[in-house]
Amino acid sequence: MSSSLGKMFVLTTWGESHGPSIGCVVDGCPSGLALAEADIQRELDRRRPGTSEVVSPRKEGDKVEILSGVFQGRTVGSPIAMLVWNVDADSSKYEAIQDLARPGHADYTYAVKYGHRDWRGGGRQSARETVGRVAGGAVARKLLRLFGVEIVAYTVKIGRVKLPEGPGATAKTLPGLRKRVDSSPVRCPDPGVSKRMEAEILAAKEDGDSVGGVIEAVALGVPPGLGEPVFDKLGADLGKALLSLPTVKGVEFGEGFAITDLRGSKANDIFEKRGGKIVTRTNRMGGLLGGISSGMPIVMRAAFKPASSIRKEQETVEMKTGRKRKIAVEGRHDPCVVPRAVPIVEAMVGLVLADHGIRSGMIPRKLA
Amino acid sequence: MSSSLGKMFVLTTWGESHGPSIGCVVDGCPSGLALAEADIQRELDRRRPGTSEVVSPRKEGDKVEILSGVFQGRTVGSPIAMLVWNVDADSSKYEAIQDLARPGHADYTYAVKYGHRDWRGGGRQSARETVGRVAGGAVARKLLRLFGVEIVAYTVKIGRVKLPEGPGATAKTLPGLRKRVDSSPVRCPDPGVSKRMEAEILAAKEDGDSVGGVIEAVALGVPPGLGEPVFDKLGADLGKALLSLPTVKGVEFGEGFAITDLRGSKANDIFEKRGGKIVTRTNRMGGLLGGISSGMPIVMRAAFKPASSIRKEQETVEMKTGRKRKIAVEGRHDPCVVPRAVPIVEAMVGLVLADHGIRSGMIPRKLA
Amino acid sequence: MSSSLGKMFVLTTWGESHGPSIGCVVDGCPSGLALAEADIQRELDRRRPGTSEVVSPRKEGDKVEILSGVFQGRTVGSPIAMLVWNVDADSSKYEAIQDLARPGHADYTYAVKYGHRDWRGGGRQSARETVGRVAGGAVARKLLRLFGVEIVAYTVKIGRVKLPEGPGATAKTLPGLRKRVDSSPVRCPDPGVSKRMEAEILAAKEDGDSVGGVIEAVALGVPPGLGEPVFDKLGADLGKALLSLPTVKGVEFGEGFAITDLRGSKANDIFEKRGGKIVTRTNRMGGLLGGISSGMPIVMRAAFKPASSIRKEQETVEMKTGRKRKIAVEGRHDPCVVPRAVPIVEAMVGLVLADHGIRSGMIPRKLA
Amino acid sequence: MSSSLGKMFVLTTWGESHGPSIGCVVDGCPSGLALAEADIQRELDRRRPGTSEVVSPRKEGDKVEILSGVFQGRTVGSPIAMLVWNVDADSSKYEAIQDLARPGHADYTYAVKYGHRDWRGGGRQSARETVGRVAGGAVARKLLRLFGVEIVAYTVKIGRVKLPEGPGATAKTLPGLRKRVDSSPVRCPDPGVSKRMEAEILAAKEDGDSVGGVIEAVALGVPPGLGEPVFDKLGADLGKALLSLPTVKGVEFGEGFAITDLRGSKANDIFEKRGGKIVTRTNRMGGLLGGISSGMPIVMRAAFKPASSIRKEQETVEMKTGRKRKIAVEGRHDPCVVPRAVPIVEAMVGLVLADHGIRSGMIPRKLA
Repeated sequence: MSSSLGKMFVLTTWGESHGPSIGCVVDGCPSGLALAEADIQRELDRRRPGTSEVVSPRKEGDKVEILSGVFQGRTVGSPIAMLVWNVDADSSKYEAIQDLARPGHADYTYAVKYGHRDWRGGGRQSARETVGRVAGGAVARKLLRLFGVEIVAYTVKIGRVKLPEGPGATAKTLPGLRKRVDSSPVRCPDPGVSKRMEAEILAAKEDGDSVGGVIEAVALGVPPGLGEPVFDKLGADLGKALLSLPTVKGVEFGEGFAITDLRGSKANDIFEKRGGKIVTRTNRMGGLLGGISSGMPIVMRAAFKPASSIRKEQETVEMKTGRKRKIAVEGRHDPCVVPRAVPIVEAMVGLVLADHGIRSGMIPRKLA
Repeated sequence: MSSSLGKMFVLTTWGESHGPSIGCVVDGCPSGLALAEADIQRELDRRRPGTSEVVSPRKEGDKVEILSGVFQGRTVGSPIAMLVWNVDADSSKYEAIQDLARPGHADYTYAVKYGHRDWRGGGRQSARETVGRVAGGAVARKLLRLFGVEIVAYTVKIGRVKLPEGPGATAKTLPGLRKRVDSSPVRCPDPGVSKRMEAEILAAKEDGDSVGGVIEAVALGVPPGLGEPVFDKLGADLGKALLSLPTVKGVEFGEGFAITDLRGSKANDIFEKRGGKIVTRTNRMGGLLGGISSGMPIVMRAAFKPASSIRKEQETVEMKTGRKRKIAVEGRHDPCVVPRAVPIVEAMVGLVLADHGIRSGMIPRKLA
Repeated sequence: MSSSLGKMFVLTTWGESHGPSIGCVVDGCPSGLALAEADIQRELDRRRPGTSEVVSPRKEGDKVEILSGVFQGRTVGSPIAMLVWNVDADSSKYEAIQDLARPGHADYTYAVKYGHRDWRGGGRQSARETVGRVAGGAVARKLLRLFGVEIVAYTVKIGRVKLPEGPGATAKTLPGLRKRVDSSPVRCPDPGVSKRMEAEILAAKEDGDSVGGVIEAVALGVPPGLGEPVFDKLGADLGKALLSLPTVKGVEFGEGFAITDLRGSKANDIFEKRGGKIVTRTNRMGGLLGGISSGMPIVMRAAFKPASSIRKEQETVEMKTGRKRKIAVEGRHDPCVVPRAVPIVEAMVGLVLADHGIRSGMIPRKLA
Repeated sequence: MSSSLGKMFVLTTWGESHGPSIGCVVDGCPSGLALAEADIQRELDRRRPGTSEVVSPRKEGDKVEILSGVFQGRTVGSPIAMLVWNVDADSSKYEAIQDLARPGHADYTYAVKYGHRDWRGGGRQSARETVGRVAGGAVARKLLRLFGVEIVAYTVKIGRVKLPEGPGATAKTLPGLRKRVDSSPVRCPDPGVSKRMEAEILAAKEDGDSVGGVIEAVALGVPPGLGEPVFDKLGADLGKALLSLPTVKGVEFGEGFAITDLRGSKANDIFEKRGGKIVTRTNRMGGLLGGISSGMPIVMRAAFKPASSIRKEQETVEMKTGRKRKIAVEGRHDPCVVPRAVPIVEAMVGLVLADHGIRSGMIPRKLA
């Protein structure tokens, strides 16, 4: 496996869904950053299961402990290790199906690649691994905030219900937007659409089925200059980070796939000087030009497939014998991963921007 | 900048559009691979400008020289350096606009990030950099072929003209498909659709405008087991490689964004045993499960924005002063980058698969 | 900071001397390796303080917990996180001297580089960090053993007392050698020399002073072919690993510096065929040719400076003001780090060989 | 192979001794650095063969061409590709011995590791590869000079002739020291010792034999704060860079191995305030504390084994059959590599310091 992300600000995650604990190490964080467990806990709480009807009922407190790297409330420049004990793992449902390839899951590919594997709760395949990402992302985002960078994500599609257009985050609208996002059980900022999305999830759940969706994320305040062509372009690294999330099947920036409907004269964002700064009149490029941040908001979307674990009976095979079997996946699953994925997306964006912030020189190695 | 891609099979590219030459170094290729300049040239010829009405008229022979790493027709395990001399660079058109931020281009972000920059033909921003990618990709693909892996890409959308559905590449249909792709000036395997796409480009060209499009790529014969969770998942690294291409604004795998319209029971691919192997009945996941190749064809799509350089007059600013200016980008540009990007996409897929092929142990470090 | 070592078999360490705990993550270990806490504990016990007169009296049980990556007694291919709680940290002595630059220590350079730092027990500078290295090294060495690779290190010099010549480890003599090494409080395999070394340490200790020394390490059973020219040569990576240890000031291979006394005709090892294999008659190169293992034992030595913390009064300055001060370093220090460094050296050699074992293809990604 | 060194300032070398050309790519150099071929040529000329009796008579002009990354005399932040055509390769002597394992050389290990290999002039094993290192190092050193960092190396031992003590480089003595070094055919700054060293080499040469030696390098003006504990310590990365050179068998810093003769009270450098700065009274640590530069000169030594290629007849074996053979290595070899290695050592030190200069923030990504 390869469980580290980043070059100068490096996150390493570890842990299995039903192992004793799960955690991460953040290496390369500048010294002098005020950091407390509460900073991390706030984000973990947003990711936590068991908070509404539309997510998994697993009862994980997800209490984080900072084990290193912080002294007298501030980082010292050394690796920040963080740990969460798994307390509500129930492996009983997995024993019987350990040799079945759950459709949509990675049981089969893990079995081929690793042979011996931890089948309890999906082991390392489980999205529970993202606890470490959210913890690391919380550090990244606290750091970025010192440099005026704010990240917000929200749900724009659940199943067939779509938010007609993005809420258009700006520095001004951000506090209100965040509030609306977090007060929606599906994390959609439009209360009306949110209700319909919730219904979409509950309908699938009732049918023992699941739905997917799309999350949009915006990074505000990123100065021009982040990103390292030609391979570590900012969009390439953001794309990789998002595509490394379980269940993500697509990523796009700015107008994304829809930009192919336009001609160049309509697609190009026109430069102009406004308030002493060079900006673009529109932002169809999503804040990225040539792989480098342009100073405009960075806008991206990720497509999450419907959750693979469903109660509905499906056909499959025994992996060892190839024998046909039926499976109805029990356990406490999310009928839709999108609501809980919103803070995870924010974390991934934060991790990449912190890394590139250091690489570009925007963020110094030592804070004043 | 960061001009290297890959961990075990590493491509490093260098060169500016109007500099003396352009090239690359491939490090980590196993020893014993039969390799000649003709293997590289074939792919460079497919990428070359000046071959039809729908691409740039720049006359670059793009003759490659292998400078190291090959002895007596086979690789020796050391870095393979390859070079192409730039022969038809015409910088005259760029002198006058060197301080203008061409809309859609990276002049502004490069100016902010690097200060001093080579403005001739876009310098390092230019898609001419992809010569090195195609050369490196040719090595990767020759290597992969020994292990039964074949990659094919083709155009599925130009402007508003769409190929209704993918051609469904299989080992059997591959030779015919390749032929149809390369005999189409837009590299669309359906002759009727190809004609309409060609018309779409020419119409834009006539208006001094440009169009974008979507390329689909399929990798056949990839065995289950490539990809390194949790961050170097195969899809994440493929996505990064594609998003590192100039003008790509989105990437998706399998059903991609459209999978969010489905419920889990429809999205999950059902496993079954066929011909002694475990396969899936459908391939909505695009050959990836949990970040690891499943043995099914790997299917992906990339969205290319309309080319930024257009003859049509656009507004912009002088970068130093912010003063308003008009610009009509002269020079010999592609009205649509998609046709020439097809071999580039194949190269990127090849590079990532060769790297993961070695990382996973599928490809040994020394060939028999 | 940069707290990860290795490319395919990657160790990341974290933790401060007086923080809550200390630990590591090993990523890239093949799946299927039998591994239990006892495998790790055995090596940590060899590194532990408080075991004799010649080492620090700090009472750390150093009980390791494996937090991930192992299921049913075997590795699953995912990151192996390991943790040791710090139980006997006494920070009281450090409060008063927190602004003094202890001579020989990194207080001053850490203060300049990081500003805010954890001064308790040296924080991250402390050799306590090597707990994570020994834990990771134990995994590496268990893995290597499956491929016939054994590592042994021993003390060849303490202060001015030298072992006249190395014990010449072979597969046959190894068990006896290990026993003699571990039954010596200074880890010197010659009982007579060991006694004199012990006396050398105790004499320094009595004077409130310290001594250094040299450790030799031998890796047996490494097949020809490990090492990646031209920069990741095996000797270069071994050298880096050893030079990354606290207090190491020099590293040499084979005859080392002394080879410069010889002419080429005496220095070159002559090849011959013995027992069906090509070997060399002598091993002045220490098992390395052109950066690649030759199949002969890999032999290296590292020089450890005298421990910096001494009771003897020394001059120094206050870092903030530059004012002159006297310091007598209290705390529970090792009068000589060499005895406890022997298992640490073995760990570092193991980590590098495991990494190169995987990189070269000697070690597969999945064990049978 | 692994032919790249550095993390932010990355050198990649390529080329075989008797291939068409040899070269390198430097990626990550800040934009705005004044750079011309003459800057590189000066250092290549110092490394060039054919300049005196004590080195190889091969007549290589070693004329460098900069192929990318420089525009209007200054770097643009993109990769700097540099190339030297091989013009005086004579492979005739190698044909007959292609299957013999030359003693001391890497023929055998390359044959095992790579199978198919370029045996002409040693191919990739040849020290000719260091042309790329010296070219890359010249860029690094030009960059470092802007920040007050100067590197000088010189010979302190050839065979059994030793310079009794180092010349003690300071900013003031540097120009004179450089002059004395480069006016000595063996690059020893003491004219008397230089003569004796020269005689030592010529005596060996006359006998068809070779000698080795030790080079000392000093980096002046490095501010405190470079180096990334715990694994990328400055000494660890310098050590790796030097140990990656052909024929280097040992590396030490400051007092090196000799420090083990001292007690801690004598080994520790005492801090004091001088001229408003905290410095140490002595510099036994060689400018490194805890893996971080202390602001004192960084002092290191590398041991070079006697050149492996000697005219004197030696025994060896045919690699394929193991049959005994005699070999007298013909060709145009250096009887002692040390004189030509002096600029190579300076290059390696420069490469590591430039990389850590960027990583630590001392060197910005864009020059004014």
